[in-house]
Amino acid sequence: MIKVFKIGGNVVDNDEALSRFLDDFAAIEGEKVLIHGGGKLATRLCQQLGIETRMVEGRRITDRDTLDVCTMVYAGLINKRIVAALNARGCKALGLSGADAGVIPARKRNPEPIDFGYVGDIEGDKVDHAFIQHLLENGVTPVFCALTHDGNGNMLNTNADSVASSVAIAAARFAPTQLVFCFEKDGVLVDIDDPDSLIETINQATFDDLKAKGIIAAGMVPKVTGALKAVSQGVTEVVIKNSANISNNRGTTIK
Amino acid sequence: MIKVFKIGGNVVDNDEALSRFLDDFAAIEGEKVLIHGGGKLATRLCQQLGIETRMVEGRRITDRDTLDVCTMVYAGLINKRIVAALNARGCKALGLSGADAGVIPARKRNPEPIDFGYVGDIEGDKVDHAFIQHLLENGVTPVFCALTHDGNGNMLNTNADSVASSVAIAAARFAPTQLVFCFEKDGVLVDIDDPDSLIETINQATFDDLKAKGIIAAGMVPKVTGALKAVSQGVTEVVIKNSANISNNRGTTIK
Repeated sequence: MIKVFKIGGNVVDNDEALSRFLDDFAAIEGEKVLIHGGGKLATRLCQQLGIETRMVEGRRITDRDTLDVCTMVYAGLINKRIVAALNARGCKALGLSGADAGVIPARKRNPEPIDFGYVGDIEGDKVDHAFIQHLLENGVTPVFCALTHDGNGNMLNTNADSVASSVAIAAARFAPTQLVFCFEKDGVLVDIDDPDSLIETINQATFDDLKAKGIIAAGMVPKVTGALKAVSQGVTEVVIKNSANISNNRGTTIK
Repeated sequence: MIKVFKIGGNVVDNDEALSRFLDDFAAIEGEKVLIHGGGKLATRLCQQLGIETRMVEGRRITDRDTLDVCTMVYAGLINKRIVAALNARGCKALGLSGADAGVIPARKRNPEPIDFGYVGDIEGDKVDHAFIQHLLENGVTPVFCALTHDGNGNMLNTNADSVASSVAIAAARFAPTQLVFCFEKDGVLVDIDDPDSLIETINQATFDDLKAKGIIAAGMVPKVTGALKAVSQGVTEVVIKNSANISNNRGTTIK
């Protein structure tokens, strides 16, 4: 089973959490892939450089200057920090953006009705699964940042969860694949403040029920919806779990 | 013949020159590799961020903050800009630092007598030539920035000419290899202001003679010395030529 892990800002921004995660990730046997989000470093660097953050409907506009900062921070600083740390732990990690070897082509989002700038939506079936397969079969662990390529020389800022789903769906074309979304909770909780209220498994039918009852709400809705979509497109299972607990079985499994 | 090209700041810092070079590079048939220097962007970003540039004996000290900037600019902004541009030109380029897949291990330079900080010297015979060979045989064009890895999770700033020589020497272990250093002149000139005074070929004997006569002097001495060293370590030939002329035969060949 290929294991595709996604970590976000809560891990990337925390040296101790990141180091612990990378210890555990490096120790996983078999074929594996890591996708990392960007964290707050890009926002901080934009501030230091006097690049204004423009938000529309709660979402950031990626203009050319912001894109350059994202490319520096995501593909440069964070990606190489993780790659170097994994190689130091004996894991033969290779850093990738979607532009590298043309592995994740994307389309710049339609500027109507809102022009989000250099933001990309992945054309799922165009991910180069053969390239990913080839790396894995040669003992290489791909480490993706959340940048894709429009095919015309422009990098595109892309949602890291979407990159993770697309990579897992591509991997599922050649081998059984598990996708693991890591975050700061143990999984989907009935009561967000009670770690003991973990929901162990969710499928489409139980999701509809939990959503109707308001138990799955807010930010968890798109997460689980995305997970169910990945399952519907061939990913064996999706697990939502705590980044500090990847070596045990605790988490919410979506099938 | 594998062709290993190195471009420096005079190409990287000039959008038009870079675009023209990438047109020509993408059009080269057969197996090829690109190594790029950093240009002035890192220095500019250090200034913008208020990171002091400390020089000793005319050479920059790479402290932790400076290293982070170099990692952002070299492995992030410049590397992905080149990789995206090459993929847009139909060349399946893959960006690499020395940390990626552990391809270029290096040793942090001895802090005595001068502590240059996070600066690396490549352990030549440890470059993973099999990994480079594998990429080339699969139609992938490696694009290296000038950062290496100490094996313990630290990136190391490394001279781009040295990276190019080490990669060419590694490639020469599995196939005949030509190393091409691109710069702003047509090659080694008898009179630096007269493009017609090009020296077409240099070998160890003619180099000793030209150096004794003061015709090869100053910055050209280490360049040609490095080229002769690469030849002595198995590289078929080294060419010093104009980045604007890579598709013709003009240049100085060192054998």
